[in-house]
Amino acid sequence: MDFHALSVNSERMRNDFDELSQIGATISGGVTRTALSNEDMEARMWLSNRLEEAGAWVQDDEVGNISGVLYSGQEGARNLLTGSHLDTVPNAGRYDGSIGVLASLECLRVIKENHVPLKTNLEVIDFTDEEGGWYSLFGSLGLTGQLEKQIDFQHDRAFHAALYHAGLSPRDVRNAFRDPATIAAYVELHIEQSDQLYESGQDIGIVSKIVGRTIFTISFFGKASHAGTTAMRDRRDALYGASKFITAAYDTIRDQFPAGVLNCGNIRVEPGAFNVIPAKASIAVECRHPDMDVLARMEQVILQLAEDVALKYLLMVNIYRDLHRPSARMDPNIMKIIESVADQLQLSHRYLCSYAGHDAQILSHVVPSAMIFIPSHKGISHSPEEYTPWESVVNGANTLLQTLIHLGMHP
Amino acid sequence: MDFHALSVNSERMRNDFDELSQIGATISGGVTRTALSNEDMEARMWLSNRLEEAGAWVQDDEVGNISGVLYSGQEGARNLLTGSHLDTVPNAGRYDGSIGVLASLECLRVIKENHVPLKTNLEVIDFTDEEGGWYSLFGSLGLTGQLEKQIDFQHDRAFHAALYHAGLSPRDVRNAFRDPATIAAYVELHIEQSDQLYESGQDIGIVSKIVGRTIFTISFFGKASHAGTTAMRDRRDALYGASKFITAAYDTIRDQFPAGVLNCGNIRVEPGAFNVIPAKASIAVECRHPDMDVLARMEQVILQLAEDVALKYLLMVNIYRDLHRPSARMDPNIMKIIESVADQLQLSHRYLCSYAGHDAQILSHVVPSAMIFIPSHKGISHSPEEYTPWESVVNGANTLLQTLIHLGMHP
Repeated sequence: MDFHALSVNSERMRNDFDELSQIGATISGGVTRTALSNEDMEARMWLSNRLEEAGAWVQDDEVGNISGVLYSGQEGARNLLTGSHLDTVPNAGRYDGSIGVLASLECLRVIKENHVPLKTNLEVIDFTDEEGGWYSLFGSLGLTGQLEKQIDFQHDRAFHAALYHAGLSPRDVRNAFRDPATIAAYVELHIEQSDQLYESGQDIGIVSKIVGRTIFTISFFGKASHAGTTAMRDRRDALYGASKFITAAYDTIRDQFPAGVLNCGNIRVEPGAFNVIPAKASIAVECRHPDMDVLARMEQVILQLAEDVALKYLLMVNIYRDLHRPSARMDPNIMKIIESVADQLQLSHRYLCSYAGHDAQILSHVVPSAMIFIPSHKGISHSPEEYTPWESVVNGANTLLQTLIHLGMHP
Repeated sequence: MDFHALSVNSERMRNDFDELSQIGATISGGVTRTALSNEDMEARMWLSNRLEEAGAWVQDDEVGNISGVLYSGQEGARNLLTGSHLDTVPNAGRYDGSIGVLASLECLRVIKENHVPLKTNLEVIDFTDEEGGWYSLFGSLGLTGQLEKQIDFQHDRAFHAALYHAGLSPRDVRNAFRDPATIAAYVELHIEQSDQLYESGQDIGIVSKIVGRTIFTISFFGKASHAGTTAMRDRRDALYGASKFITAAYDTIRDQFPAGVLNCGNIRVEPGAFNVIPAKASIAVECRHPDMDVLARMEQVILQLAEDVALKYLLMVNIYRDLHRPSARMDPNIMKIIESVADQLQLSHRYLCSYAGHDAQILSHVVPSAMIFIPSHKGISHSPEEYTPWESVVNGANTLLQTLIHLGMHP
């Protein structure tokens, strides 16, 4: 049998997609399945059942990753890992993460049904909390032993409670570590979330690099006082300072760092009453850049700006680095395989850099990893309007299928 | 007996102050007794018990106002109303509102103990939600029949629930109306909350005018998208627009309206994740001015600014006027009485305008009303650092006592 002629069952995968999209569906046509929420739990159970029906051996681990393994029957076989994540940001699109998991599930079915003689075990995985509702890339960090030594549950009791709620023991999360020597490779299909493929009309993106990323909480502290009776010139208004910082940081990064991106995604004000001058304003600041040296310079510029604003408007500032994630390089050999698969399937393709973080970036530090991107309509993501034509999804899934067959038969 | 020689019992009032300050005390030395909260409820019960001990007849009404009445025994006597409010903003000072209620309670005790032959009934009142945790000046608006016809409980279910929690029936709040003809006058003692008396070293402020005030919710709408993959030049970031608005509005009002004040006291961002571009940012905007015509111009300037920002940064804007409160004039006759009382007590005094809203402003539209101000240390208010020397409190209470005696004996 010519295994290179195999392709995924588009209709079956579409049914899966429609079913999964119902779990946590929002009124605006998106989904909300933040990690460890009831909706996320339901999606995991749904996946477990599909994997079991497909003939995979379902397992989970101490960080809540769910996977199904199709054993090769060969002694000492390593696992060929493929998947993505089922969790989402609030009111997210239906494609981000889900498509990767569903395509991997479908590939496992096709490989099993056609008795493709893989030399590796094939493992389809859903990683916990890729989006960082609690702890960004928690599942892949846990599996690869890259979680920080002591997670500060003291300051995040809600995360602690959420783990318990999901049946996980916070003290055992580091036990999820798996010896990388047992993993042959990791391949992940994902929507691009940017508009390069959409603009160029190409079918397949072969990821070469994933951006580095740093998240800060920058808090300005002023002085609470009565809003009616405190003269405007005498105020130390934390929200005023925070607003100056947001606009200045945005303009500076846009103008001075063309390949960098900055986002101030949230701000919280205390005490937060309309008639009290804000005493505290905390901003969630995220910056990304594909080049680690430039990312470090970006961070410097942002922190200096925060200090300058505080000094100028008589505020105090506190800067906490919540997360720092180095950039990552994908495996050149697997990239070549994906390229030849795309050629063979007559799909146009290009190499590109991912501005979004992915589990593949965590895996890449310990095992050969690669990512296949498919176009996102207008580059819109993390929004109910996220959209990828179904044909593109099928193209991506077939590229993944052939890549897995190649890697599994010639590990 | 010379009733003009009577004075309040400083020590007894100080004990009251210390007890009351414990209810809702915060770790930073302030208090949190937002209206209808358990802490506010406890403070009302505490007051009811003190009023009852003092020999007053305790009553409440459909908006939760608590009062104690000392009847004159004269048929058809009107009520001389005095008091303030026990509710506070979050992490407030201990003086704002409380001092007025406590001084009124103490005046009632002294008048009762010394059998001062008032021709009016004396009623000491705690007005519900002066601060506007739910509905600014709710108690005084209810008592004077100035509540809006239909309170929009559909859009404020939490307020609805809070009323029930406090034993009040939302559908009956308009029944709290009392015929103004039954009220002889209203006098309120309050801390100044600004620094005019503090700076001039004067003892007593006689309020001539209370500023008008408008509160808006200004919401900017952009487009949620993935923060890493959406180019910075392509964004429609609601928080960026809101930040531009906050700083511009602040600077404009400060520079163009010397007697006006503006506060952006809170901002809420949706969806509010660090990795999603803000789709919505809602700002609580408050402006005050003693002159109604100028206030109207200030409002115009602010709304135009919001429109300009929206247009410039490709956002939508929605403006909702939550509240509009006209400015108020105090009663010239009672102002004269307070002035002569202060002279008689050898307390220095001045006339001033209040930049804070007060229940007296609501009462003033239907009954002769007046306010006595005492100094606030550095003008700080709505903060745990709010402070008034006890001597000043006693000066204020004695001024209130003599004013009440005069008004009650010569109504």
